[in-house]
Amino acid sequence: MITTMMNRAYNFGAGPAMLPESILQEAQSELLNYQDLRLSILELGHRTEAFREILFEAETLLRRLLGIPDEYKVLFLGMPARQHFSMVALNFIGQNQTAGYLLSGIWSRLAFEEASRLKNAYSIASVEEGNLQALTHSSGWHFAENTAYLYACPNETINGIRLRALPKYKDKPLIADMTSCLLTEPIEVKDYALIFAGAQKNLANAGLSVVIVRSDLLDTVDGISLPALLNYKNQANHHSLLATPPTFNCYLALKMLKWIEAQGGVLALYKRNCDKAKKLYDFIDASSFYACEVAKENRSLVNVCFKLQEPGFESQFLQQAEESGLLALKGHKLLGGLRASLYNAMPLAGVEALIGFMQDFAASRS
Amino acid sequence: MITTMMNRAYNFGAGPAMLPESILQEAQSELLNYQDLRLSILELGHRTEAFREILFEAETLLRRLLGIPDEYKVLFLGMPARQHFSMVALNFIGQNQTAGYLLSGIWSRLAFEEASRLKNAYSIASVEEGNLQALTHSSGWHFAENTAYLYACPNETINGIRLRALPKYKDKPLIADMTSCLLTEPIEVKDYALIFAGAQKNLANAGLSVVIVRSDLLDTVDGISLPALLNYKNQANHHSLLATPPTFNCYLALKMLKWIEAQGGVLALYKRNCDKAKKLYDFIDASSFYACEVAKENRSLVNVCFKLQEPGFESQFLQQAEESGLLALKGHKLLGGLRASLYNAMPLAGVEALIGFMQDFAASRS
Repeated sequence: MITTMMNRAYNFGAGPAMLPESILQEAQSELLNYQDLRLSILELGHRTEAFREILFEAETLLRRLLGIPDEYKVLFLGMPARQHFSMVALNFIGQNQTAGYLLSGIWSRLAFEEASRLKNAYSIASVEEGNLQALTHSSGWHFAENTAYLYACPNETINGIRLRALPKYKDKPLIADMTSCLLTEPIEVKDYALIFAGAQKNLANAGLSVVIVRSDLLDTVDGISLPALLNYKNQANHHSLLATPPTFNCYLALKMLKWIEAQGGVLALYKRNCDKAKKLYDFIDASSFYACEVAKENRSLVNVCFKLQEPGFESQFLQQAEESGLLALKGHKLLGGLRASLYNAMPLAGVEALIGFMQDFAASRS
Repeated sequence: MITTMMNRAYNFGAGPAMLPESILQEAQSELLNYQDLRLSILELGHRTEAFREILFEAETLLRRLLGIPDEYKVLFLGMPARQHFSMVALNFIGQNQTAGYLLSGIWSRLAFEEASRLKNAYSIASVEEGNLQALTHSSGWHFAENTAYLYACPNETINGIRLRALPKYKDKPLIADMTSCLLTEPIEVKDYALIFAGAQKNLANAGLSVVIVRSDLLDTVDGISLPALLNYKNQANHHSLLATPPTFNCYLALKMLKWIEAQGGVLALYKRNCDKAKKLYDFIDASSFYACEVAKENRSLVNVCFKLQEPGFESQFLQQAEESGLLALKGHKLLGGLRASLYNAMPLAGVEALIGFMQDFAASRS
């Protein structure tokens, strides 16, 4: 029994997140027979020509969509984004070195804590000091000697904070966790020495992370005491095939990248994402029932954090939203409140449905 | 367009490996709507009740199928089996300690090299010294002082070697890589301190590994310098949810565990695996065209390595086999030759089809 026609809900979860329905249908239709090989993509060996083609095509498309220069390597690794918190520290903070972290929210804080525990690291500026401006205005920044890299999380999924522009320093490689924003807005890859992202927001299902890393940074890796799979250079030398990669996730990533190209590319999706976010923030700002506490210039494009002025209604809000097919609007447990994640796969119709529901809910409680 | 009825090939690949067709059909039918939640399992959040149920049920079933005692933790981790090569060394070889490795083939050799690089380790016995007997007869074994654990790979996927019985030492925890044999034969979990296995042979698709570990071993972990995700104790404390787990793989694992139970459990599958292996080995041994070089008492139940007496026919053999729907029979690149992997999901009919083809091929070349 195959279900093809059905009412799909809008999934506002921060990740694992919504996927385009057309991709799910494609994956469904070929699940028992991939490219007439008479086996499932779930069974396809990672050393086969068919799988190598998937990896090659995915890399080629990602390079084209983001304009990745030739001197960068692209890796598809079977690990959570969080694994990179330790990897960037272990790979790139040498003896007598330290690294500077921009603490814009919970994820950069966790990356900083991991780096501090394993190596040396310091905070350049922190949102916890109450001043989000300090995170993007480098005039007040002080760097420690022997700073191996600067680390930033341009979109903080939990806090709903976006750092629009990051300062550039020629002598300090910039490393960025783009788990929730990669492919949602144009970036200049050459401004970064390393970008990593978990796949489960905008690229594929959970279990894959993608890395874009400049070759000269890899040359600085001293791998002697590194676990083999945590060594970026080693992974690059083995073209992401040092261990069995998460083959199905790579297959899905290729479908997503093709979908992004068919939508008009990253710039087209960025414009759509701006429209979606503006609609929702404008509605919240105009309402006396809902509120968003993030300063306008720092608001995330893809994770809209908000709350009810009367928190007592929250569980009712969530329950009725779910009944209306608007799923996973609960904020992260560390922060509370509500959150609507509007990644690439969320259509404008989903945002409009959410706003409609929010209007009705507010009216029924006023 | 949904393809449900089709000629499926027999996939003899060593992993990613064959899955039962009924599971693929189930996954296909519910891919757009998991349990009437109106979203795909690929989109389901890992903090949802529905996903927690998947993890809980999978653990419960695995415990029942293998008779895992209460004092063991079960972990589902989003990493390749190979990551455990460094993890077991980093977690369990303390200062001034070492670990003893049984080198039965290529995978245990690689695990040994990783442990030696990161900590101290030594070889207890090695197949490379030409004596497979030495691997299971402990009379000649010498242990170094301060041996933290013994390490073994009871089934060597590449070499087609099986260690039937491993000696037990009360004061030396036994750690085993069961990537290719877990759930294919009965084991006494209490004989082991830690078992790990990649999922892509007998449990799910690639991207997941499962760990069964005795709690008192976890208590010995000194996590101070360990990457957070490489710390078994930390992962156990967070019930496998420290980072976003590979949700789809866990879902598939649950289906596989249910399928194993429906087949009659591990013992029933073991009997079937013995029949399948015996049929193929008997045919090879009786033939003058094919040969298996592994000593009978050490032959793997699930990875049958063999060769043509005339290696010149190999590429023809592989091509014609593929045309006959018998896929991925090429041996591992490090060893050459041919290999038929007969995991749980390979039906007896697949083995019979292979033998039939081998007979015809031999006849046509004689």
